[in-house]
Amino acid sequence: MKALVFEGRDLHLQDVPFPTPGRHEALIRVLYAGICNTDIEILKGYMNFQGIIGHEFVGVVEKCPYPDLVGKTVVGEINVSCGKCEFCLKGMKNHCPNRSVLGIKDKNGAMAEYVTLPIANLHVLPPKISHLEGVFVEPLAAACEILEQIDIQPEYRVLLVGDGKLAQLIAQVLRHHTQNLTVVGKHRNKLKLMEEHDIRTVLLENLDFPPKYFHMVVEATGNPSGLDIALQYIRPRGFLVLKSTYYGEHPFNPAQIVIDELNVIGSRCGPFPRAISLLEHREVMVESLISGIFPLEQWKLAFQKAQAPNALKIILQISE
Amino acid sequence: MKALVFEGRDLHLQDVPFPTPGRHEALIRVLYAGICNTDIEILKGYMNFQGIIGHEFVGVVEKCPYPDLVGKTVVGEINVSCGKCEFCLKGMKNHCPNRSVLGIKDKNGAMAEYVTLPIANLHVLPPKISHLEGVFVEPLAAACEILEQIDIQPEYRVLLVGDGKLAQLIAQVLRHHTQNLTVVGKHRNKLKLMEEHDIRTVLLENLDFPPKYFHMVVEATGNPSGLDIALQYIRPRGFLVLKSTYYGEHPFNPAQIVIDELNVIGSRCGPFPRAISLLEHREVMVESLISGIFPLEQWKLAFQKAQAPNALKIILQISE
Repeated sequence: MKALVFEGRDLHLQDVPFPTPGRHEALIRVLYAGICNTDIEILKGYMNFQGIIGHEFVGVVEKCPYPDLVGKTVVGEINVSCGKCEFCLKGMKNHCPNRSVLGIKDKNGAMAEYVTLPIANLHVLPPKISHLEGVFVEPLAAACEILEQIDIQPEYRVLLVGDGKLAQLIAQVLRHHTQNLTVVGKHRNKLKLMEEHDIRTVLLENLDFPPKYFHMVVEATGNPSGLDIALQYIRPRGFLVLKSTYYGEHPFNPAQIVIDELNVIGSRCGPFPRAISLLEHREVMVESLISGIFPLEQWKLAFQKAQAPNALKIILQISE
Repeated sequence: MKALVFEGRDLHLQDVPFPTPGRHEALIRVLYAGICNTDIEILKGYMNFQGIIGHEFVGVVEKCPYPDLVGKTVVGEINVSCGKCEFCLKGMKNHCPNRSVLGIKDKNGAMAEYVTLPIANLHVLPPKISHLEGVFVEPLAAACEILEQIDIQPEYRVLLVGDGKLAQLIAQVLRHHTQNLTVVGKHRNKLKLMEEHDIRTVLLENLDFPPKYFHMVVEATGNPSGLDIALQYIRPRGFLVLKSTYYGEHPFNPAQIVIDELNVIGSRCGPFPRAISLLEHREVMVESLISGIFPLEQWKLAFQKAQAPNALKIILQISE
């Protein structure tokens, strides 16, 4: 089958053997796969991953120990956990130390004609959600994770730093939970998309809130510069949520965290059912976030486009 | 009067004018002042402070609008807040944006014959606490701040990284709140002191816990290397308490905070009454932490000694 393989230096479209599903796994024919910022970072060296990349996908189950699932359109949670360790038994399977992660760590990803995943990871896509919309379930779940971690109080002033793919989803999620959301970004066109959902936005160059103004700041720029902005505007004892992962180290001094007694909270994968429900009930709208759909063969162009400053979600169409 | 003044480059013992207490302030004759790691960092450039340094002290009130206080031996909280802002009105006066901080920010410190502080900052030292022990109230309060921030559960495995002045106090505080405390440090003599309080210790070179083993890690080394150790041993969704402030930036990538969804909690100044109570009831013992007492005139030697690897608290004796 055809697959996008990263071998540690370059990405290639290759013919690779069909994957063999494990005992509790399904074989899934991939329809669409989204390009995430993490994929771009993997190409720079993040996680030292080698193999087939891609972790946002919609596919159709072709083979499965549970016959009910065969033929169903599914999305999949990306952490493949052991089910036996302390973390798995405590309901923290996304933190299983023995886990592999689809297209990110020790498990071939979804930018391929076929992918395998444990049945326990699969969620059937409701008919009200289109296949293209389904590509957003994984990152939208990550956006929802913030709600699992912080009980946003009515008086909180909330700043979201970033206007990219993930930030768009976070903004749409947060607007249902606070009246006091402001998003700061660098791209007029991206901020405009948020304004269509009545979200207050401001261009970075026009940002003029007093320093340390916000009770809660979410950093979702995908790059190190976002942290500086976040630290500038977070209030003492405030909640600073970190969503960005990127390759490489950058100069930093944690003194402000200590002096201002900040709560810095890392936030990663989130609950699929909540994300699916938000899409199903049109509480989060994703169609306008698609900047392009490319057949797998045009992956080079797709990845180029995904890194353009004005682009949002680029999707690879892998099969019909 | 004589005072230790840092002018941005060097520390000097100088003759400076007597301080004039403000309307709600007391004039305090300083008996003893402790050298804190923050003082050392200030000499490197931390906080860009200029003026009289020193913020750990015991003194006698000489002049005061409340006559009851005159002649009393006191210790003092170091944050001088405005009393009017949102933070002050919400009981977060240590985070008042208009605050000055004794010997650290916009307020002359206690390494001088006299110091001034608002009456509201003063705590009378109970007779059961010696003057020398009183020098430890301020850092001990900072150690106690951890208890205000984290509700340590019985099942938590707790690692304290560091064996210096502040770490010694934190260890003695934490041992009353968990059976599962381990301290890792570089200095046999310092770890020995902790062992006298039945605290489990391990030399850094012998540290062989599994990675990500601890639910809670307190970083109190006073230098950037402690953070690496802390991140190595903190468990996913664990609490990483940062106590160290130091000068300069260091390479860092926050990816682990995100991936492991860590809770990183900055921790600074703490409750004086709790610290005073611990000393009064001998629940924390500090005498063995004193590595030397020097008259103010021997400040050079004192600061040299304070930076020696095996030294703990160095105290300046300023008046009788």
